[in-house]
Amino acid sequence: MSATSLDVLALGNAIVDVISRAEEDFLAAHAMPKGSMTLIDEVRAEAVYAAMGPGVEISGGSAANTAVGVAALGGRSGFVGLVRDDALGTVFAHDIRAAGVAFGTAAAGEGPATARCLILVTPDGERTMNTYLGAAQNLTVAHVDAAIVESAAITYLEGYLWDPPPAKEAFLAAAGIAHKAGRQVALTLSDAFCVDRYRGEFLDLIRRGVVDLVFANETEVKSLYETADFDAALVRLRAEAKQAVVTRSEKGALFCADGACVTVPAFPVAEVVDTTGAGDLFAAGFLFGHATGRDPATSLRLGALAAAEVISHVGARPQKRLIDLATEAGLLR
Amino acid sequence: MSATSLDVLALGNAIVDVISRAEEDFLAAHAMPKGSMTLIDEVRAEAVYAAMGPGVEISGGSAANTAVGVAALGGRSGFVGLVRDDALGTVFAHDIRAAGVAFGTAAAGEGPATARCLILVTPDGERTMNTYLGAAQNLTVAHVDAAIVESAAITYLEGYLWDPPPAKEAFLAAAGIAHKAGRQVALTLSDAFCVDRYRGEFLDLIRRGVVDLVFANETEVKSLYETADFDAALVRLRAEAKQAVVTRSEKGALFCADGACVTVPAFPVAEVVDTTGAGDLFAAGFLFGHATGRDPATSLRLGALAAAEVISHVGARPQKRLIDLATEAGLLR
Repeated sequence: MSATSLDVLALGNAIVDVISRAEEDFLAAHAMPKGSMTLIDEVRAEAVYAAMGPGVEISGGSAANTAVGVAALGGRSGFVGLVRDDALGTVFAHDIRAAGVAFGTAAAGEGPATARCLILVTPDGERTMNTYLGAAQNLTVAHVDAAIVESAAITYLEGYLWDPPPAKEAFLAAAGIAHKAGRQVALTLSDAFCVDRYRGEFLDLIRRGVVDLVFANETEVKSLYETADFDAALVRLRAEAKQAVVTRSEKGALFCADGACVTVPAFPVAEVVDTTGAGDLFAAGFLFGHATGRDPATSLRLGALAAAEVISHVGARPQKRLIDLATEAGLLR
Repeated sequence: MSATSLDVLALGNAIVDVISRAEEDFLAAHAMPKGSMTLIDEVRAEAVYAAMGPGVEISGGSAANTAVGVAALGGRSGFVGLVRDDALGTVFAHDIRAAGVAFGTAAAGEGPATARCLILVTPDGERTMNTYLGAAQNLTVAHVDAAIVESAAITYLEGYLWDPPPAKEAFLAAAGIAHKAGRQVALTLSDAFCVDRYRGEFLDLIRRGVVDLVFANETEVKSLYETADFDAALVRLRAEAKQAVVTRSEKGALFCADGACVTVPAFPVAEVVDTTGAGDLFAAGFLFGHATGRDPATSLRLGALAAAEVISHVGARPQKRLIDLATEAGLLR
């Protein structure tokens, strides 16, 4: 097995977030399930945008946020995802590269516009997302460079990639290349509604060992096993997944492998401003630690620290240098 | 004189801000005078953008920010400024309308792209701006609707409008219409470098009474009268301007008219995150108070409160409902 040139290669939807504050009744009036990610078409995207308040545009995308988080911790990360060669696509490519992530996917010269996610943040900091996938849904196997996948210690895939059909193939191709090169494959279940759409396929990926490491939060684990009993769901996940990271918001997080679990508490946060990106940044911290040979407890703590930073401000990309925060917290030296 | 339908009509450059954190040495390496607004062409805009870190896109523009601030205080405001019919132009128009500002200037169907301002925020919270004027520089007299100007208690003009030559004519036309209708005309000097470019013309506008109310900060007043002595500069401004508002950052602000001045302290701020928009929002608070018949001390306090909110987060548009903050502070009922 050759040396790695990337700690983490992330594949996902390349999206620019449009974030706005909204009251609870806005969600109700527009039939948006609070806390969910709903796929919308262009017509609905325009209607929601017209109705929502002033926005802030910040590059996003679940796996892309994770790649940025790994880089902010001093790790070597890359991203594969498709934008259009339009204004928002230029913004996405600039931002991810400026954050230190290797991003080489050429922008599409035709077809739908760069994806955008209309995010409504309610006063409790919870986010409700409406995604117009646009160009991102046209990611295919042709965009996956085998040499780059082979060079990455962990290839990380977002569950949301299961929505655009050609991207699913790209996802499976990347997993196959990674395993053939002796690397690990990780998957985030993305959200409970996404699990609901693809439960059978996700369980199959876990059971067949296409995925070595699963990331999920409490509601996603419960959705996966269709139970309201978290402990019962966890027993099943521990039995079926080679390795799993489960995040539980303010109740902390755990890592399970070979029948044993390690747990850590949540990192303290002065004020939860916007939870967008919490799971993405938790994954970034854990993946960075895991890929660089740190023990599970340290990797979980890096995840908790990165998640705490990102929920303390608007937007799903870190604003502070995570490497400095982690060094101050004694997690890196 | 008929009843007003707007408290404040603002004319200015319609700009989307691209905000990024930067270290002091970035400014030095790119020869950017700290705290200034520099006009740049498209080539320079692309070079600076490529070199700067990940950005956040938020609608901006000095007078546009002021119009949004007036609306956030519950006032009736309008804005005149030119965007292109491109992605950033759509963002600008959406955001200002969603903030409750009447914005009717049709987007240009051809010509340069929507203006953008590349803003570097240093660790001390100070902002250094690089503006590509694009479509904004094509604002002309034809974009000024006389009926709307006549309906506004105060027409507010940004000094930056003196940079694009056709906009200067639009500025003077609006001032003439406002005065003919018995309304007031206000001008912000915008920044010390802008004053340096147009000192003679700005003094002429003040002396000839084209402007009834001048907004300036300490460095702008000193630049206007080419002196390092603030008190000496203030004596001259008091003698020449009908009415003037002078902001002094953490030293508070004053309003002078008819030889007398009223001063108020700055509003306390927990942490200065980004000073972008401080002057714009101070003007919003004062103009709202002034246009709705409040006394100068209350109007100044409204300005101080609005400025304090905007410097406590990234971006030059208020994130909180200013009307609620002002009510809590006892300034509105």
